[in-house]
Amino acid sequence: MSHEIKGLNEECGVFGVFNTKRAHELTYFGLHSLQHRGQEGAGIVSSDGKQLKQFRNKGLLSEVFANEADLAALDGISAIGHVRYATSGNDSINNLQPFLFNFYDGDVALAHNGNLTNAKTLRKQLEAQGAVFQSNSDTEILIHLIRQKRDKDFVSALKASLNEVKGGFAFLLLQKDRLFAALDPNGFRPLCIGQLKNGAYVVASETCALDMLGAKFVRDVLPGELIIIDKNGLQIDHYTTDTELAICSMEYIYFARPDSIIHGVNVHTARKQMGRLLAKESPVDADIVIGVPNSSLSAASGFAEAANLPYEMGLIKSQYVARTFIQPTQELRERGVKLKLSAVRGVVEGKKVAIIDDSIVRGTTSKQIVKLLKEAGAKEVHMRIASPPLRFPCFYGIDISTRAELIAADHSVAEIKELIGADSLEFLSTESLIKAIAIPGAKASKNGGLTVAYFDGDYPTPLYDYEAGYLASLKQQTERKL
Amino acid sequence: MSHEIKGLNEECGVFGVFNTKRAHELTYFGLHSLQHRGQEGAGIVSSDGKQLKQFRNKGLLSEVFANEADLAALDGISAIGHVRYATSGNDSINNLQPFLFNFYDGDVALAHNGNLTNAKTLRKQLEAQGAVFQSNSDTEILIHLIRQKRDKDFVSALKASLNEVKGGFAFLLLQKDRLFAALDPNGFRPLCIGQLKNGAYVVASETCALDMLGAKFVRDVLPGELIIIDKNGLQIDHYTTDTELAICSMEYIYFARPDSIIHGVNVHTARKQMGRLLAKESPVDADIVIGVPNSSLSAASGFAEAANLPYEMGLIKSQYVARTFIQPTQELRERGVKLKLSAVRGVVEGKKVAIIDDSIVRGTTSKQIVKLLKEAGAKEVHMRIASPPLRFPCFYGIDISTRAELIAADHSVAEIKELIGADSLEFLSTESLIKAIAIPGAKASKNGGLTVAYFDGDYPTPLYDYEAGYLASLKQQTERKL
Amino acid sequence: MSHEIKGLNEECGVFGVFNTKRAHELTYFGLHSLQHRGQEGAGIVSSDGKQLKQFRNKGLLSEVFANEADLAALDGISAIGHVRYATSGNDSINNLQPFLFNFYDGDVALAHNGNLTNAKTLRKQLEAQGAVFQSNSDTEILIHLIRQKRDKDFVSALKASLNEVKGGFAFLLLQKDRLFAALDPNGFRPLCIGQLKNGAYVVASETCALDMLGAKFVRDVLPGELIIIDKNGLQIDHYTTDTELAICSMEYIYFARPDSIIHGVNVHTARKQMGRLLAKESPVDADIVIGVPNSSLSAASGFAEAANLPYEMGLIKSQYVARTFIQPTQELRERGVKLKLSAVRGVVEGKKVAIIDDSIVRGTTSKQIVKLLKEAGAKEVHMRIASPPLRFPCFYGIDISTRAELIAADHSVAEIKELIGADSLEFLSTESLIKAIAIPGAKASKNGGLTVAYFDGDYPTPLYDYEAGYLASLKQQTERKL
Amino acid sequence: MSHEIKGLNEECGVFGVFNTKRAHELTYFGLHSLQHRGQEGAGIVSSDGKQLKQFRNKGLLSEVFANEADLAALDGISAIGHVRYATSGNDSINNLQPFLFNFYDGDVALAHNGNLTNAKTLRKQLEAQGAVFQSNSDTEILIHLIRQKRDKDFVSALKASLNEVKGGFAFLLLQKDRLFAALDPNGFRPLCIGQLKNGAYVVASETCALDMLGAKFVRDVLPGELIIIDKNGLQIDHYTTDTELAICSMEYIYFARPDSIIHGVNVHTARKQMGRLLAKESPVDADIVIGVPNSSLSAASGFAEAANLPYEMGLIKSQYVARTFIQPTQELRERGVKLKLSAVRGVVEGKKVAIIDDSIVRGTTSKQIVKLLKEAGAKEVHMRIASPPLRFPCFYGIDISTRAELIAADHSVAEIKELIGADSLEFLSTESLIKAIAIPGAKASKNGGLTVAYFDGDYPTPLYDYEAGYLASLKQQTERKL
Repeated sequence: MSHEIKGLNEECGVFGVFNTKRAHELTYFGLHSLQHRGQEGAGIVSSDGKQLKQFRNKGLLSEVFANEADLAALDGISAIGHVRYATSGNDSINNLQPFLFNFYDGDVALAHNGNLTNAKTLRKQLEAQGAVFQSNSDTEILIHLIRQKRDKDFVSALKASLNEVKGGFAFLLLQKDRLFAALDPNGFRPLCIGQLKNGAYVVASETCALDMLGAKFVRDVLPGELIIIDKNGLQIDHYTTDTELAICSMEYIYFARPDSIIHGVNVHTARKQMGRLLAKESPVDADIVIGVPNSSLSAASGFAEAANLPYEMGLIKSQYVARTFIQPTQELRERGVKLKLSAVRGVVEGKKVAIIDDSIVRGTTSKQIVKLLKEAGAKEVHMRIASPPLRFPCFYGIDISTRAELIAADHSVAEIKELIGADSLEFLSTESLIKAIAIPGAKASKNGGLTVAYFDGDYPTPLYDYEAGYLASLKQQTERKL
Repeated sequence: MSHEIKGLNEECGVFGVFNTKRAHELTYFGLHSLQHRGQEGAGIVSSDGKQLKQFRNKGLLSEVFANEADLAALDGISAIGHVRYATSGNDSINNLQPFLFNFYDGDVALAHNGNLTNAKTLRKQLEAQGAVFQSNSDTEILIHLIRQKRDKDFVSALKASLNEVKGGFAFLLLQKDRLFAALDPNGFRPLCIGQLKNGAYVVASETCALDMLGAKFVRDVLPGELIIIDKNGLQIDHYTTDTELAICSMEYIYFARPDSIIHGVNVHTARKQMGRLLAKESPVDADIVIGVPNSSLSAASGFAEAANLPYEMGLIKSQYVARTFIQPTQELRERGVKLKLSAVRGVVEGKKVAIIDDSIVRGTTSKQIVKLLKEAGAKEVHMRIASPPLRFPCFYGIDISTRAELIAADHSVAEIKELIGADSLEFLSTESLIKAIAIPGAKASKNGGLTVAYFDGDYPTPLYDYEAGYLASLKQQTERKL
Repeated sequence: MSHEIKGLNEECGVFGVFNTKRAHELTYFGLHSLQHRGQEGAGIVSSDGKQLKQFRNKGLLSEVFANEADLAALDGISAIGHVRYATSGNDSINNLQPFLFNFYDGDVALAHNGNLTNAKTLRKQLEAQGAVFQSNSDTEILIHLIRQKRDKDFVSALKASLNEVKGGFAFLLLQKDRLFAALDPNGFRPLCIGQLKNGAYVVASETCALDMLGAKFVRDVLPGELIIIDKNGLQIDHYTTDTELAICSMEYIYFARPDSIIHGVNVHTARKQMGRLLAKESPVDADIVIGVPNSSLSAASGFAEAANLPYEMGLIKSQYVARTFIQPTQELRERGVKLKLSAVRGVVEGKKVAIIDDSIVRGTTSKQIVKLLKEAGAKEVHMRIASPPLRFPCFYGIDISTRAELIAADHSVAEIKELIGADSLEFLSTESLIKAIAIPGAKASKNGGLTVAYFDGDYPTPLYDYEAGYLASLKQQTERKL
Repeated sequence: MSHEIKGLNEECGVFGVFNTKRAHELTYFGLHSLQHRGQEGAGIVSSDGKQLKQFRNKGLLSEVFANEADLAALDGISAIGHVRYATSGNDSINNLQPFLFNFYDGDVALAHNGNLTNAKTLRKQLEAQGAVFQSNSDTEILIHLIRQKRDKDFVSALKASLNEVKGGFAFLLLQKDRLFAALDPNGFRPLCIGQLKNGAYVVASETCALDMLGAKFVRDVLPGELIIIDKNGLQIDHYTTDTELAICSMEYIYFARPDSIIHGVNVHTARKQMGRLLAKESPVDADIVIGVPNSSLSAASGFAEAANLPYEMGLIKSQYVARTFIQPTQELRERGVKLKLSAVRGVVEGKKVAIIDDSIVRGTTSKQIVKLLKEAGAKEVHMRIASPPLRFPCFYGIDISTRAELIAADHSVAEIKELIGADSLEFLSTESLIKAIAIPGAKASKNGGLTVAYFDGDYPTPLYDYEAGYLASLKQQTERKL
């Protein structure tokens, strides 16, 4: 996944496992396969059946647990874990998950993938009632809501609280003897259930975590569901029935791992199909087809196949671009120093190149790619994007919260083509995107069960706290255009 | 490059630049693009025109220079650098290069890619004459040989010494005001010259380092040549004319970066051609073609093209397998925990799969790949290897020094097929390999200018110190078979 | 201070400064001089006048701020800081102070030296009302109590809350534009006010922090006081008038730095006086007087003076005993390997030695010291302790919470003498201790304004949550003796 | 020892042990007690009876071996170790000792305390003969000299080489089955032999290392001796008989640990005697006597005793001044921030203070001490130095190589008194210094067997390579005065 290349960031991945030896290690390996969903921090909370233990820190999972003793100390029979992409200014260790709360009546741990849209309002209400928050995370709100309902049993309090929070969420909660998984009423984020060979249940953001552990896929968690796993096994409950599937289409386009299967659709296959439909919608007179490594390779091979053009490896992504990498100075960049991507001169020289990318965010990477290919001798560079133009922010868990950074928000396709220097530029239509993904059984749902609001601005829910800012941003955009 | 997956290791990459501001930083970025040639240690020696300064340490380049001040301290106008793969037992920091020697008559730094075949003999002779070595590296021998020739000027002493060392070598030497590059008489290792926009010369193991810096390719260094770069510019000299090109074929097959061009041949293109010829030599009844990421993707796409079969992404390589990664215990492996590679069920399920790999060393990875694909539902797994069976060790700079570890050394192709569990297995013939690479102008040379001794045991030079061990290994092999 | 030698640990030191440039750096240096009060963790929260920023971590102050950028990021005009001794099992970074709480109506930071005796009860009450705690620290309770009083202004809420918490506390609170300091009604822990040359106020656990910064001593904070520092200057308020000074006598005996002045009494001078009175109470027939470095040197010199005996340096404390130090194995200890302390043979050989220590906790160190001196040739070893036998735990902020570890809890002086192998052993009487310290103006107070409960079990307050455990411990002790 | 306070640095400590289990750990603990002799780097080479293994790095011993596995890897039956003070510009890891050299005919390790005065000349000669040096250390010369003598057996070659090197040296050499210790003909540096309870021999720079291990003192190594320890036991040989004891007087004055005994003289006792004689030579009208911690406390107590004045703890040295400590800016220093030393106001206020220091190097610390005491209220500050004025550099192993930095080199005592702001200043005479140390049996030797050249410029040997520079420095000094 080219996460370091593009300015588009998933905010989290979650994993949980219940009632098996070495739960902490299984969680470590499960999180490892979800690392692409968040590279800024990681944590695990485990239960030994009596109490919960926590370890979390900044960095990649392998850095967080660089000291094996830190993992060994979490030895337990159930555990939840979290990988996180930290938005700037919120990089305190306090914000790393899973959160662990110690109460006189038992410990609770909490991990969250998504974004709550009424967090600000709820937090202010809770603080006005005496609540003390220690993180800046919207996630912490859930536990305060639960604890406010002291007259109810835990499950009832949890269900009531899940009805109070709005937006996108896949929550995992761990108690010493129970594991909960809950998905928001639109199922914005993926969440699935698996089962290990020894019968223990696993929950994870993506099926690639099940494959990593040799776990059998059981089913996806559905919108509005509350999954309860305890010594009696797995129970599928729900906290609301007012649901409608609207899973984030960017999961299929860019975020999820190609080997994951979400709501019955393999991500690689969906991407390949996007490429095929793109070739049909926007054919190109080219000698070869190249994909931007790594997330666009599937779409590129589909495009090549449908266009009946040779699929070539014309761009190489460095596998050693660490985050600690010393950056070239302006002077060195002017001398030509480039990291991350290289063009294969032997492949592109003298050719008309169709370059396939999954999406365009700010356009800076696209511009560099076109330049790279032309410098390596490409005669023409035709860019084809296997998704529609990103014009509106996401409020359900992807880090594109202002329109200002989206090049397509206030530029036409023709303008973008000029800005990035391509000989031609086309995007996939929203219709074809929906058709390419084609979630089984969701054909009748709006947009085939997908959120495509990033492309058309038609959000499936009210935006609550974000409403004002969003409208202001739209207004500003309009003014800018005048 | 899948270096972490396969037990086959290049031992080094070298880089040098002369007479330009920020030579230390250019060397850093040059080495970055050669990181695939060695991940165990790195170092830079720079010259500020008066004296040489050194920094070296274990780890990836980005780890070695994690503290920017360590790089800044090397500020200079010329520099050489080195990335190293350390063979076990030799991991002392003393063995990291470039070596720096301070003499009363001037400092000399030395970096080496390759392996000397008469190092043991020479070292014993030198020690018997009073020489004191501080590393276990064969590289250090060159400086002792040079200093023994005190009656000659430096260039003459260097030329004479280059005639005394045998085996594979691409040497870089730096003095305060001169940079030397020398290649062995067979040109076993690649080495090329480039020129920055400001006119400064660059030497590097591969052209991808030139591309990284926006440097123009000038020419390959040829066997027996001694390149001298000083304030007067670049001078092409030679220390011997008894030369014959026999560059390591594994550079094309596996080691070099696909975007590099060696002796006029683009590595990706050569690999693709290997795939094409393999498809012709060993056709397969399959539904899809899959390459083992990342080094075999070129060959796989060539194979698919020639076989007229769909090329698919059926295997995913984790991009987060750090060397500090906690390894799964035996118990966890049995539970199914697998790192590094995942199969894409949505792609391979129910399919007859042609899986293309560049080579087989011990066979353990091949066995895992077959198992992975079958567990993901592949109906049949046909393995095709885009090079001949590796049956003999290399003595010129690749880390396969005993035959014992090579599965093809004492197993037939049919036996290997059984051991790895594939439904069929075929290798590329040596003839096709040579034909696929086709170095321009080397058609008349033996094996088209390539070393293919790993496949046929016919070494282009005497083996010196290794002769005895090699013969013993052959004998042992024969006995094992009886 | 010999904190590493003795099993007796202060739990904290606090520092605050208001309205001056570089408040973060002044806090760093202030904490540096309080490092002897806690070596397990440190933190600083600063205010830039608008918002609060926090940095905290495990380790010595110099380790916590090993990266200068972490300190520079706290650039502010006021700040509070904390050094902490972590009791085992509570070593999570969550428990490191100062705590920082972000509320919609403003940030609050909190640092605490001491121990609350009704923390368990209060926390349970608060949780039952919906409070969510994120640390295991008793300190966090104060902020919850304050936030429960939403109908009051901050100062009123703070005063009311200070009346609810019981035990020992020196609290510092920081808001963006105010600094508060509060001391418990018995003044168990020291806390003083100083003023920088530029007029800015400073509060600190000990005056040595004022000296470090060249600050003028203003006055000690008195029991029951609430100090409020804002743009209008310093205001001395109080939250209760039901107070009686009972400062921890161990501060004078062992914890505080010899150069600090607490309630008008210089610590070194008090210790020297303890030594003088000890010499009078328990004279000894010795050739020389030796102190256990470093905390007993003052008492030893007083003893020598009063006894008219030569004061000698017969024991050397290693200055390089780091906490990461590799410990000798049992085998090596048996071979004689000893760390920390060495006897000076040239001084003690053939001599009758009076060895002065400030206190005995478990007796293990005393035993080693006697052995060390005898092995170095001392003819006789007479131990004199410059404080009474430690027989009862402290509940106000020192880490001696069970009687089981106190050798004097269930052994007579004669028994202890046998156990440690000394030729004679005597302790200072409580009367002489009080006389030696002699807090000006506190003569009429019970025990001269000191807590001496560790010696006589007569606690100046109810013990609340600890009552039961303490009584159980007493009972167990009695049974053990039967 | 106040090494961090004063600009005077010992360059090394050495330790060796032969034929005992856990030799590597004993060496670790032995070096620990020699840490005061060098804090910049440490290393150990051990032998398992077959080959030698090395580990060395920058930092304190506890930092070098922070990872226990690094020490465990050295498991052996004999070992030598080294702690080093690195002079600026020579801080490469290449220069850390013990050096390890691998030869075809056996490994040799080498550790050195001292400084060779003809190193430059010898190195140039050796390089002209083809030798290749890899460190900038004078120590490496010895091994080259030995290896030049290929016609001789090792012991003969070693003896001949020891006669070629000039200056100060305590050498330890380790082979797989032998340990050597050699001392220069003047015995400039201390070196002693001990014996463990199991009979194994130990050699160390100071006896405090023997005490640490519970080893019995056997004897000092004498000038010109070569000690050979092998399976047959310990043999005392010599490489020259042209010897005269002239041990560095600064070892007694400042460097050595107070509990060490060198040539029969306990360091603490010698210092105390220096203080006594100083009191007689330069009496003072004072109320109290204070020593600069820690190295001057012995002298101060002797002074107090002889002057019949109270000895007080009026200065406190911080025990937490780490080398990573963030330094106060100029602005903060002006605000009064001071590290390292604090004055005890309660002790010095209103008093006439006699402050005893062991020596004055640049005078900057003395000036600060006077200021500190006056700020704390001292009425008068009379400084007494327990050694003569340091006016000439040392060439035998102490880091004072130019006269420029010595305040006494070109200032009279009266001038220094003014510069440091003391009310009076006196130094001990050289005669009294010699009388205070009084090495048994060396009364008839010149200066009682001591080097006092730092005070009178009368060096006991030719200065070889340093001659010219020294004379130039003297000349420059003279000119400056004119």
